[in-house]
Amino acid sequence: MESSDWSPISGGITSPHGFMASGMAAGLKPSGKKDLALLYAPEGSFCSGTFTKSIARAYCVELCIERIKVCRGKIRAVLINSGQANACTGNRGKIDSELITQQVAQRLGLSSEEVLICSTGVIGEPIPLDRVTNSLNDLVENLSKKGSLDAANAILTTDLQVKQIAHETILGKRRVRIGGMAKGSGMIHPSMATMLSYLTCDAGVRPDIWSSMVKRVADSSFNAITVDGDTSTNDSFLAFSTGELLDPKYLPALENGLHMTAQYLAKAIARDGEGANCLLEIKVEGAKNDLDARIIARTISGSSLVKTAIHGSDPNWGRIIAALGRAGVPCDLKDIQLWIGPYKLFADGMPMNFDRKVVSDYMQEKLNGKYLIDDKIDIRLIVGMDEGSSIAWGCDLSDQYVRINADYTT
Amino acid sequence: MESSDWSPISGGITSPHGFMASGMAAGLKPSGKKDLALLYAPEGSFCSGTFTKSIARAYCVELCIERIKVCRGKIRAVLINSGQANACTGNRGKIDSELITQQVAQRLGLSSEEVLICSTGVIGEPIPLDRVTNSLNDLVENLSKKGSLDAANAILTTDLQVKQIAHETILGKRRVRIGGMAKGSGMIHPSMATMLSYLTCDAGVRPDIWSSMVKRVADSSFNAITVDGDTSTNDSFLAFSTGELLDPKYLPALENGLHMTAQYLAKAIARDGEGANCLLEIKVEGAKNDLDARIIARTISGSSLVKTAIHGSDPNWGRIIAALGRAGVPCDLKDIQLWIGPYKLFADGMPMNFDRKVVSDYMQEKLNGKYLIDDKIDIRLIVGMDEGSSIAWGCDLSDQYVRINADYTT
Repeated sequence: MESSDWSPISGGITSPHGFMASGMAAGLKPSGKKDLALLYAPEGSFCSGTFTKSIARAYCVELCIERIKVCRGKIRAVLINSGQANACTGNRGKIDSELITQQVAQRLGLSSEEVLICSTGVIGEPIPLDRVTNSLNDLVENLSKKGSLDAANAILTTDLQVKQIAHETILGKRRVRIGGMAKGSGMIHPSMATMLSYLTCDAGVRPDIWSSMVKRVADSSFNAITVDGDTSTNDSFLAFSTGELLDPKYLPALENGLHMTAQYLAKAIARDGEGANCLLEIKVEGAKNDLDARIIARTISGSSLVKTAIHGSDPNWGRIIAALGRAGVPCDLKDIQLWIGPYKLFADGMPMNFDRKVVSDYMQEKLNGKYLIDDKIDIRLIVGMDEGSSIAWGCDLSDQYVRINADYTT
Repeated sequence: MESSDWSPISGGITSPHGFMASGMAAGLKPSGKKDLALLYAPEGSFCSGTFTKSIARAYCVELCIERIKVCRGKIRAVLINSGQANACTGNRGKIDSELITQQVAQRLGLSSEEVLICSTGVIGEPIPLDRVTNSLNDLVENLSKKGSLDAANAILTTDLQVKQIAHETILGKRRVRIGGMAKGSGMIHPSMATMLSYLTCDAGVRPDIWSSMVKRVADSSFNAITVDGDTSTNDSFLAFSTGELLDPKYLPALENGLHMTAQYLAKAIARDGEGANCLLEIKVEGAKNDLDARIIARTISGSSLVKTAIHGSDPNWGRIIAALGRAGVPCDLKDIQLWIGPYKLFADGMPMNFDRKVVSDYMQEKLNGKYLIDDKIDIRLIVGMDEGSSIAWGCDLSDQYVRINADYTT
């Protein structure tokens, strides 16, 4: 089964049957933009999640983990606020999170344990409780099939672009849809999943199978991106499956669709990283195993010197080799081959004789193509050991990244 | 023995008895600045070194390791060129390094094995051989006790400040001196020692004791700094000891002096990091052990978000806690206390009630003090587990860092 059997359709998390969403401005962001979202899952849905490994994780993350366990995945709603991360807010963070989910549950006729809360924004800032509770009636009333774009907007912080997507296919005689939304931007180097991403799917899957699928999907997508090497306190990835159980023979096809959807969102996050002008795709092949390939790819995609070279459209293969060199994976320099786009720059332990201007022009074109399908710079390495391969995504490091983050809270 | 018993004296690597140096412009740098240095050690000197762990290390690093072994440390001269790293230059890098050291040896009446070569500059660029060989007569003729500043200048690349220092003390009835020089700037996150640093000392020490001292000294200094998280292909730290054997009872005092000298150079490298405006000192106390403390300190000093917050004189403790959170060291958020300078910002799992403007003003003052003794921003964490402690040094991340590195080779 090829992933090309999945067709993109317009929409997002509400495209799969039974899901509804809403999003609104509750006054949590100084900008007055949308900042409160609600995702509603139909009865019988099963939710699996992966969360930040940070020891400083926000209480809302603890709450998600705990409730998914208590409910055995039967989660029915997720409230998401942007503006305040509600991390490192002590006991108040806990009390507020519990109170808000209780109020959402009441309005939806659910028990509190069936409702999750995710928060994103400034660490140490508590949620303005009144503003949230005053908005909950409207938020619940506005739940609809058409609410995905509002919700996808309401979860953004310094993101410039909305990140949502939906795919559809026929498995047997049944139409199956997958929807997703995410937010990213800074503090993006997920150690388990990224800062707030959501998948919905209207095919039922046995909970244990769904949970292991979701872990694999997180690894191939959100865990493969970096913007700045910093891992957030609130990273969460939630994936809902609902509806009649899918014939097990279609599970590989379904997983393909999930990977594709999650990778789209992950790449959208990297491309829209703070101050970024292009998406960087690092493909490592020929490693001893996939893990080694992954370590090399992640080290290169996280190197400040590689990222600044990309920003300067500088085919500085030396920095790529230096990053590979410090990745801690044994390999022989003489066996390494390196390409930027179609141009081979390094082989046999030495630089190739290449036209620096041609490669630089190629990179400049990609850098100018922000948000076009063609804004991706490909770096490919063959390390000549064995069959291990992996892909990582990142972005360039620009003056704007520094400006955005030098001026963020004060 | 207190390290304060060591008095700073003017000078550098030639201050200890018997050492000579020279430095000149050989036309290796497009700027026409000094780019070729020679360090001469007296007969009977013993040299120990630590080198980059990069698998992409330059051939000159291999040569240093090999010759120190072959000569059992009896190295007599080191040639250093800046402008070209001579890394990833294939067989040519090897042939050139051997040829140059052979010519230096001939002029000094030494065997090739007693001469080392270190290179720093652009990866993939070979050394312009003719320019070096044409300059060797002058370089050797100019060797003198007064040559340390010329040598310290000739090893710089994008560094803005010369880094040299000398200390003196009396051990028993004997005057002992330690001298040092280093270069740093970008691609600084040493995995074993930093990009080119040199210590000289006119007290003899048994080779095995000297070698283990040098390793400890590297760990407390060059291995504790980061500018951008990238490890160089050419990092090398060489330390020479010469003269009559020191009474073993003075070894701890000598080691104090070595730590002090190396830490001075390491901090000078961090402070003069590419685009940096201030030195960042991260002190972690109360960890389970020193290694845990070191991992936390290094993670914080390497965080792009912490470094940009410092650049914006933003007391953004949330990013410091987030970096600690992802360091992979178990600890309880509730036990953590955090200070910036004299200001306590976080305790009991929550932010303290502090005046943001006062802390920001304090940081701004330090940022404005570049190259003054007072340009250091202190971050202190107590993690409340046990007695483990460690210090790491770094710098702020500025727009200039991006500009310098976006424009470096093309």
